[in-house]
Amino acid sequence: MAICNQSQFKPISISPKTNHLSNFNLQISRSQTLLKCHNNNTSSLPTKTLKIEPLPLFTSVRSFAPATVANLGPGFDFLGCAVDGIGDYVTLNVDPEVQPGQISISDINGVGNSGKLSKNPLWNCAGIAAISVMRMLGVQSVGLSISLEKGLPLGSGLGSSAASAAAAAVAVNEMFGGVLSESELVLAGLESEAKVSGYHADNVAPAIMGGFVLIRSYDPLDIIQLRFPMEKELFFVLVNPDFEAPTKKMRAVLPSEIAMSDHIWNSSQAGSLVAAVLQGDLRGLGKALSSDRIVEPKRAPLIPGMGAVKNAAIGAGAFGCTISGAGPTAVAVTDNEQKGRDIGEKMVEAFWREGNLKATATVRSLDRVGARLISSNS
Amino acid sequence: MAICNQSQFKPISISPKTNHLSNFNLQISRSQTLLKCHNNNTSSLPTKTLKIEPLPLFTSVRSFAPATVANLGPGFDFLGCAVDGIGDYVTLNVDPEVQPGQISISDINGVGNSGKLSKNPLWNCAGIAAISVMRMLGVQSVGLSISLEKGLPLGSGLGSSAASAAAAAVAVNEMFGGVLSESELVLAGLESEAKVSGYHADNVAPAIMGGFVLIRSYDPLDIIQLRFPMEKELFFVLVNPDFEAPTKKMRAVLPSEIAMSDHIWNSSQAGSLVAAVLQGDLRGLGKALSSDRIVEPKRAPLIPGMGAVKNAAIGAGAFGCTISGAGPTAVAVTDNEQKGRDIGEKMVEAFWREGNLKATATVRSLDRVGARLISSNS
Repeated sequence: MAICNQSQFKPISISPKTNHLSNFNLQISRSQTLLKCHNNNTSSLPTKTLKIEPLPLFTSVRSFAPATVANLGPGFDFLGCAVDGIGDYVTLNVDPEVQPGQISISDINGVGNSGKLSKNPLWNCAGIAAISVMRMLGVQSVGLSISLEKGLPLGSGLGSSAASAAAAAVAVNEMFGGVLSESELVLAGLESEAKVSGYHADNVAPAIMGGFVLIRSYDPLDIIQLRFPMEKELFFVLVNPDFEAPTKKMRAVLPSEIAMSDHIWNSSQAGSLVAAVLQGDLRGLGKALSSDRIVEPKRAPLIPGMGAVKNAAIGAGAFGCTISGAGPTAVAVTDNEQKGRDIGEKMVEAFWREGNLKATATVRSLDRVGARLISSNS
Repeated sequence: MAICNQSQFKPISISPKTNHLSNFNLQISRSQTLLKCHNNNTSSLPTKTLKIEPLPLFTSVRSFAPATVANLGPGFDFLGCAVDGIGDYVTLNVDPEVQPGQISISDINGVGNSGKLSKNPLWNCAGIAAISVMRMLGVQSVGLSISLEKGLPLGSGLGSSAASAAAAAVAVNEMFGGVLSESELVLAGLESEAKVSGYHADNVAPAIMGGFVLIRSYDPLDIIQLRFPMEKELFFVLVNPDFEAPTKKMRAVLPSEIAMSDHIWNSSQAGSLVAAVLQGDLRGLGKALSSDRIVEPKRAPLIPGMGAVKNAAIGAGAFGCTISGAGPTAVAVTDNEQKGRDIGEKMVEAFWREGNLKATATVRSLDRVGARLISSNS
């Protein structure tokens, strides 16, 4: 009998613990009649170990990955969460016109500036993540093509590239029976993010896993899911102004050195934020969200009107407000959808009044699921 | 009818929420037959508001406050927890030989270097906290005397001054019917800490409240209790070398500026630590405890053998290890008391072998109660 082994990834640990190796084995045994074995790079592997290539379960799958809010104030570069109802879609087809083991991007459409995206899979977030998952799975016998439908504008601060990567990673994985664990998909997404916007998983991890996610370390990748209590209501007011804030510029403005007092303050707020999420304390969550003394003070002046928008949100009853990701979207939190709409109105007004920017507001709840299969055709 | 008001403290909030005003009123109504009213500083108060002075319920009370481990690695200056079975005792007597409204320290005894402590209540941690609570309560008609029994050596890194302050604050409060809330007692303890070791509540808050405590802010004082799951076992291995590490020297070695990358790392570890506490994840707690890249690397070299002690703890199976408070005590965590003793032995050996220091080890569990009344005499 062939013995399956994983690809040579970095070690991974996930808390709360999931034994992704046994998960892997479970998936293998479920779909073993569809698997075929071939010996891949045996020179560097123990003689008993064979690489097993899965075959596609479907001719076509469609997946969705949600928008994400990274940073969350004091959680700069290590905290993020997923928001429901907006995101990117990927349709993945087995395509006999594509060389086996390869992927192509057939079309890209959707909101705003999605026309800027490359159709070269090596330069496209969805393409890079899909290739990574294909490599992890050892897909060599079929060619695939992607159709990408952008629900998120680029450079919005809502994890646009991460949503594409997450949707593509999940699509490829589901096409071949869902063999890989979420943490392996995060690694694939991270490979994509590294090429496009930096080696950060604070968008792509929540885009794949849903809910709130803390990235504890990258080497090895160690991710903590922070479970927000099911019985609590949490709404994000997302206000996106008509203004492009490139991630690189927003990074360049950050200080390389931090005063010890600011470090202590921000760390304690990060701890408070984690406690607030786990305890379902919305007031505490908002307070911590608004409390960043390191990143937001540098970035907010680059987004016209942001200071006034934050004040307007708090004034209208939001528990807290900050910049979503690297901006320019502003995010506020509340416990009531109607209140969220009222807060959004005030924030839109403030963007116009103080920043001379048109903006649109949307009220979204927490996405607890993450990237998922929407439909499949055999 | 007289209307009770609180003293003019800074605003306080405590999470999870306790309505300390209604708590205050509850205490008042319980003991109202023992209260007497007098008008104190009415010129600055609304005319209806009278200051009520409580009378002592007892002639003598005895209290205890536990040792505390502050910092906990990446929780520098804002996280701490209480450990059971070691701490300071205060016996408080109504003393007709002491001027009404005043306090004296009749004697100090106990372990190690407690003879160094001043008996002048204005320069003694217990005295300062006791005076602060007397002022909060408006005690003016009786004089009190304190007998302080130190269970914790000074400068050990186990919150010696905080334990004295906490025990004294609770003793005075209980003597007069427990009118003040825990958060008000923390303010009294903080006044003491500010004079003795700096304006930090990360020892005195857990010494008073028990368990794990996060200080979110000081102005207003905002404290979060982090509930470690009741069903989980957690043991602290405390290894105290025969070496005095003065808090001031340990502070002076700290950098005033932090690299952004270290800030992000430490903040994410602080968040992980909070998550681990709330989720009862001992492995995660240990990992975060061991992960400080800012404070421990500067302080450890000032404690002979500390690096080897940490390695010995981890090597012996501890989940994590760091410096307790400003040192020199080393603290490791484990889930089993016997394993804790074995870890302690290895740590003691390492202090001797690499630091040429004699050390003693003790294994303690989490104190979930905090400072408390032990006995009282009417």
